Amino acid sequence: MNIADKLIERIIATKNPSVIGLDPDLRKIPSCYKSKSTCNDDLLAATADMIVEYNKDIIDTIHDLIPAVKPQMAFYEQYGSWGVNAFERTVEYAHKRGLLVIEDGKRNDIGNTAFAYANGHLGQVEVLNGENMSSFDTDFLTVSPFLGSEGLIPFINVCEKYDKGVFVLVKTSNSSAGEIQDSFRENGQTVSQTLASFISSYAETTVGQKGYSGIGAVVGATYPSDAVDLRKRMPKSIFLVPGYGAQGGSAEDIVPCFNNDGLGAIVNSSRGILYSHMSEEERRICTKAQYLDSVRAATKIMQDNIYGVLKKHYTNMYY
Amino acid sequence: MNIADKLIERIIATKNPSVIGLDPDLRKIPSCYKSKSTCNDDLLAATADMIVEYNKDIIDTIHDLIPAVKPQMAFYEQYGSWGVNAFERTVEYAHKRGLLVIEDGKRNDIGNTAFAYANGHLGQVEVLNGENMSSFDTDFLTVSPFLGSEGLIPFINVCEKYDKGVFVLVKTSNSSAGEIQDSFRENGQTVSQTLASFISSYAETTVGQKGYSGIGAVVGATYPSDAVDLRKRMPKSIFLVPGYGAQGGSAEDIVPCFNNDGLGAIVNSSRGILYSHMSEEERRICTKAQYLDSVRAATKIMQDNIYGVLKKHYTNMYY
Repeated sequence: MNIADKLIERIIATKNPSVIGLDPDLRKIPSCYKSKSTCNDDLLAATADMIVEYNKDIIDTIHDLIPAVKPQMAFYEQYGSWGVNAFERTVEYAHKRGLLVIEDGKRNDIGNTAFAYANGHLGQVEVLNGENMSSFDTDFLTVSPFLGSEGLIPFINVCEKYDKGVFVLVKTSNSSAGEIQDSFRENGQTVSQTLASFISSYAETTVGQKGYSGIGAVVGATYPSDAVDLRKRMPKSIFLVPGYGAQGGSAEDIVPCFNNDGLGAIVNSSRGILYSHMSEEERRICTKAQYLDSVRAATKIMQDNIYGVLKKHYTNMYY
Repeated sequence: MNIADKLIERIIATKNPSVIGLDPDLRKIPSCYKSKSTCNDDLLAATADMIVEYNKDIIDTIHDLIPAVKPQMAFYEQYGSWGVNAFERTVEYAHKRGLLVIEDGKRNDIGNTAFAYANGHLGQVEVLNGENMSSFDTDFLTVSPFLGSEGLIPFINVCEKYDKGVFVLVKTSNSSAGEIQDSFRENGQTVSQTLASFISSYAETTVGQKGYSGIGAVVGATYPSDAVDLRKRMPKSIFLVPGYGAQGGSAEDIVPCFNNDGLGAIVNSSRGILYSHMSEEERRICTKAQYLDSVRAATKIMQDNIYGVLKKHYTNMYY
């Protein structure tokens, strides 16, 4: 049983191949969380405390509906070490509630530096007196591939050692994604396609009981025809699929990211679940209970939409 | 006077267009620092404290010889929020000693997420009660361009707002750099060349008194012929040049990264200054004073080599 099996097991248990982004955005979090109830005088620390309280409420509200959460590191790290501490507390709490954690960090470097990122986020690091300790202890990390294979192999090695996973950026969901990822060619292949071959070669040697590897790819919902192509090129990789909902991708658009078994992808929604279902005015005046009810409702709607469209398209669904 | 002017002013004052990487590597730091003198029981916190002590000694030892330091975030972040706190304390101390700080973080994302990174590392973030605060407050940040222009413009916008700088990865120093950066072509141009045009268009609108912009590029010392080409394509950008020393680039190799004025580039050395000048055995038994003397000597040798080779090649040196 590998990390992909653990994710798939939870997808099957919840009938929900989706992941909720925990992207705390101060301008969008309901006012009821922001009354500075904390007695911490340091405003960065107080903000970090508020974020942890908010995240815990979200996790408590939907942990039974979802397999995993995807905290976006930028939204924590922007508050410095206090923010990073809030990230650590969030990961710990998500694990405690049985959720897997996909860290969206888009880390990238080479050699020893890449090992430092990989060991810090996914593995263990050596500390004073020679002991090894876990720092972030997330289950998956997104990785950016601009530095070539030397920028990816250290992350893959650490995943193999600690049974963790990576999602390598292959075709992102944003409108300028293609500038580097598609527009350039070598021997008729795009950058995305060449990355897919590289990822596939590693994924095939690390397949778990359910047929998937922890070496995955980010493939946006906003380019369904590319998803068809990339799905064929990386049959054993799980796709992390951004772009659904707020970014314009529909439930139909995510279909080609999956294999016929209804597995092989996990669709992300962040703003669509956390903020978009209430107007700015509603978020200003709602109670925590009202807000969390609406978050749970939005999560169920997303689950229904995705599971529904998969059932419609794939007759051999595994679940 | 913009951020590029500030960097150039310090380069002229020290006659040293180089930057020392602060990459604390526990396996290589001399034993005299690792005796767990701290009374902190938390080993991650104790490790972070040791790193700050080590960095302060390095900074005290060479602050008059160099314009800037380049802490590599991975080596801090691997120890979680304690490590990030050590990074913050290092930045603060470097500033206190008059050094500019180039953060090597290779951050990358789009939209609001990119703004969160840029504001957190270079600008200001909004905290509870609506105040704005600085988090990391570094002067420059390295940025990875895989997501296209949407992944770069938010960082550039924040640089313009707060007078900070970025170094966008264009041609890195590692041996697999070319896999994405060179091998693919669009209209006969490589990815690196196309990025150079993009960067140049922003650099030209943000030029300071000495003719340079804060919108810079990472161009490795290990590919001198690419540096010749990229130097022409980005005349107003400062190049951050990795690959000198430990990675195989010689003083001659860095020449094409500079303009005729002997400006336009800043050469990085990390391992070459911190560790390579002493054997493993010497680092095991040396005193702090012996170690720091050797760090200062290595810094002076690098300064002599680089300034010497520039003087030889460029008769119109500005300094």
